Amino acid sequence: MKIYQEDLATMKRIVDDYTQETVDFEIEQTVQTIIQNVIKNGDQALKDYSKKFDQVDLDKLLVEPSELEAAYGTIDDDLKASLLTAKDNITAFHELEKETGFVDVSTPGIVRGQKLTALKRVGLYVPGGTAAYPSTILMNAIPAKIAGVQELVMITPPQKDGINPAVLAAAKIGGVDAVYQVGGAQGIAALAYGTETIPAVDKIVGPGNIFVATAKKQVFGQVAIDMVAGPSEIGILADANARPSELAADLLSQAEHDRRARAMLVTDSLDLAQAVSKEVDQQLTTLPRQEIAQAAINDRSFIAVMPKVTEMFDLMNAIAPEHLEIAFDNPSQYLGLVENAGSVFLGRFSTEPLGDYLAGPNHVLPTGGTARFSSPLGVYDFVKRTQFLQYSAEQLANVADKVTKFARTEGLEAHARAIEARFKD
Amino acid sequence: MKIYQEDLATMKRIVDDYTQETVDFEIEQTVQTIIQNVIKNGDQALKDYSKKFDQVDLDKLLVEPSELEAAYGTIDDDLKASLLTAKDNITAFHELEKETGFVDVSTPGIVRGQKLTALKRVGLYVPGGTAAYPSTILMNAIPAKIAGVQELVMITPPQKDGINPAVLAAAKIGGVDAVYQVGGAQGIAALAYGTETIPAVDKIVGPGNIFVATAKKQVFGQVAIDMVAGPSEIGILADANARPSELAADLLSQAEHDRRARAMLVTDSLDLAQAVSKEVDQQLTTLPRQEIAQAAINDRSFIAVMPKVTEMFDLMNAIAPEHLEIAFDNPSQYLGLVENAGSVFLGRFSTEPLGDYLAGPNHVLPTGGTARFSSPLGVYDFVKRTQFLQYSAEQLANVADKVTKFARTEGLEAHARAIEARFKD
Repeated sequence: MKIYQEDLATMKRIVDDYTQETVDFEIEQTVQTIIQNVIKNGDQALKDYSKKFDQVDLDKLLVEPSELEAAYGTIDDDLKASLLTAKDNITAFHELEKETGFVDVSTPGIVRGQKLTALKRVGLYVPGGTAAYPSTILMNAIPAKIAGVQELVMITPPQKDGINPAVLAAAKIGGVDAVYQVGGAQGIAALAYGTETIPAVDKIVGPGNIFVATAKKQVFGQVAIDMVAGPSEIGILADANARPSELAADLLSQAEHDRRARAMLVTDSLDLAQAVSKEVDQQLTTLPRQEIAQAAINDRSFIAVMPKVTEMFDLMNAIAPEHLEIAFDNPSQYLGLVENAGSVFLGRFSTEPLGDYLAGPNHVLPTGGTARFSSPLGVYDFVKRTQFLQYSAEQLANVADKVTKFARTEGLEAHARAIEARFKD
Repeated sequence: MKIYQEDLATMKRIVDDYTQETVDFEIEQTVQTIIQNVIKNGDQALKDYSKKFDQVDLDKLLVEPSELEAAYGTIDDDLKASLLTAKDNITAFHELEKETGFVDVSTPGIVRGQKLTALKRVGLYVPGGTAAYPSTILMNAIPAKIAGVQELVMITPPQKDGINPAVLAAAKIGGVDAVYQVGGAQGIAALAYGTETIPAVDKIVGPGNIFVATAKKQVFGQVAIDMVAGPSEIGILADANARPSELAADLLSQAEHDRRARAMLVTDSLDLAQAVSKEVDQQLTTLPRQEIAQAAINDRSFIAVMPKVTEMFDLMNAIAPEHLEIAFDNPSQYLGLVENAGSVFLGRFSTEPLGDYLAGPNHVLPTGGTARFSSPLGVYDFVKRTQFLQYSAEQLANVADKVTKFARTEGLEAHARAIEARFKD
């Protein structure tokens, strides 16, 4: 692995170069055409695209509930047990995220507050092929159902040999209400605008390739979307006491996701840096996804040696990694220094893959530096708020002059007159 | 006003036609070019565009703090009092929105939780000319500062005669940290990517014209944005007891905002519908912004007469109005029927303009049906969450088999090995 020994300012510039992404206008155009076609031709467009992109000739889009039941019956008992444990832990964690509204009646004659309502219908995109992760279905579906979403609609690309049973079993366990086989930008268009078969939803969540991500960005506004997810990332902060073999394994667990994944170690020990680099090379040789992991390690990953702990955190906050491991003794002491990160793993036995599957916290996390302003997927993503306000005649009279002054300053006479209309009789 | 007497299904189709908006690809292209130019040429691009679009030749972008002080000194005392009352009420309401994280240590050997951190730097767009609303500055700035945003940067288009003193005074009262004079898509690009003078922010909020809205949509992902705001809307639910003159005044208070504004009354009384329509025509004749309000009333507004209260709410939930007035007796009894609305005004003395200025709830609200999935602007828009997790060796050992099973099912061998690396010695 590339080892840097630069000062903080230089490291921040280097990190910035790693995070630059450019817009692909050709993909933008292709996606725009697909969306317009789905708006115009509905189900027929979906079937045409399935034939063209997935090489599958569909007679129907809906996956029958009986097929979900059947899939649940076929998966092996160990996987079933893992899925059910994951469900329990994800549920327990996300129950803690539930919020309530409020009402303030502390001033006589004034009621003001906010109420929460679950989104009615949500769409979940699940990639096909090797990127079909049952764990992701649970991570998206469970918070939505805890929030109170009435209709959770899942779409996933059709497969020549039928949809992966583990995916359908996870849909059943996660409480998905309906599954349709359609993928890509056309699937996102169907969820945003609706077709004869697929209902238009209020929000679309779930990961996908560049076509899916671009389509989600384009339909944003028509519906809500979760963050447009980029390649996976791990940042590790470690001192000389950490174990190189474990850190290397953790770096590789992210690198194997994607050629564009990023694995980043920041440490105050050059010895550790060198030992980890050696371990990474060695562990790579026996990985089934060696080629992918190697590309991610070579092109997108690094080790930075920085002398001061505060600077280590400063750099990591500038990176704003999706996953952050703190491999120090007493790691929770450092939580206050973390400003930007999706999910933090504290100490030796909190290796990142634990969080990917079944510890409970969500694994749908902000990537590409967006942890500066985004949160993990949670129950709060499936509710919206409505304010309410009630004034008595007396309280309105108390502020009438101030409101009309304000309105007339802004040149909005009709606003002022709406107040005055109350006091005409 | 157009009065409909149709069944619910027909009304829903009519309402759907009103909300259709189309993408303007020419504007998309123009905005794309502007953003690329600002990324490449920084401050110089901003100055060139100010000359071209605003006809102002700028020597500097920053508005000095002393200019804010001076503006605060020049505004009249009544306006100052209105702004300060608004500040107090907005602060009181938004303090109630503050959230905390959580930690769960109920299982020995497992710590899991979530912490909240304020966004570090936020950009606020304030339109120029007649659309420069001091109230909007307070509505955006106060929640940001309550959340703990360290650096709140405001931009507003340069004006030939200097920026409106009320705008600068509101910036001072709202706690804005720096003001730059730059507008349009170029201003949004500056906030998203930074220039020599203007710092890149984590999130951009605030209303603007179609160029601003399009630019916000295009930089989404690079930074967070608030909802892309459309024209203002009011929905009113009223029965035969409501007063036509008051309802007409309220409908017009939204109609005067914009030719594309929408004013919608749903009532079970045809008599009331006809009386309100007559009142609207009459009140229109003396409005300074008559032409704008008339266009909004003619082209985008309607009255629907529906016999049943449940259907009235069903239709209004399909509309998902930005503002909703419930002009019934005992209006809070009906709050449970409201699913989709930005802000609800209960009863005769809670006319919508009261909420625009100083009752306390936010006036930055979801428009164009987006209340189906979006919330009013609030303190929660200026914080993000970070999960954290710590497992003991024993607890990791307890779930190790389940995690490795999961990982191998998903074809991610390196994930499984990261778990196993902990138990090698």
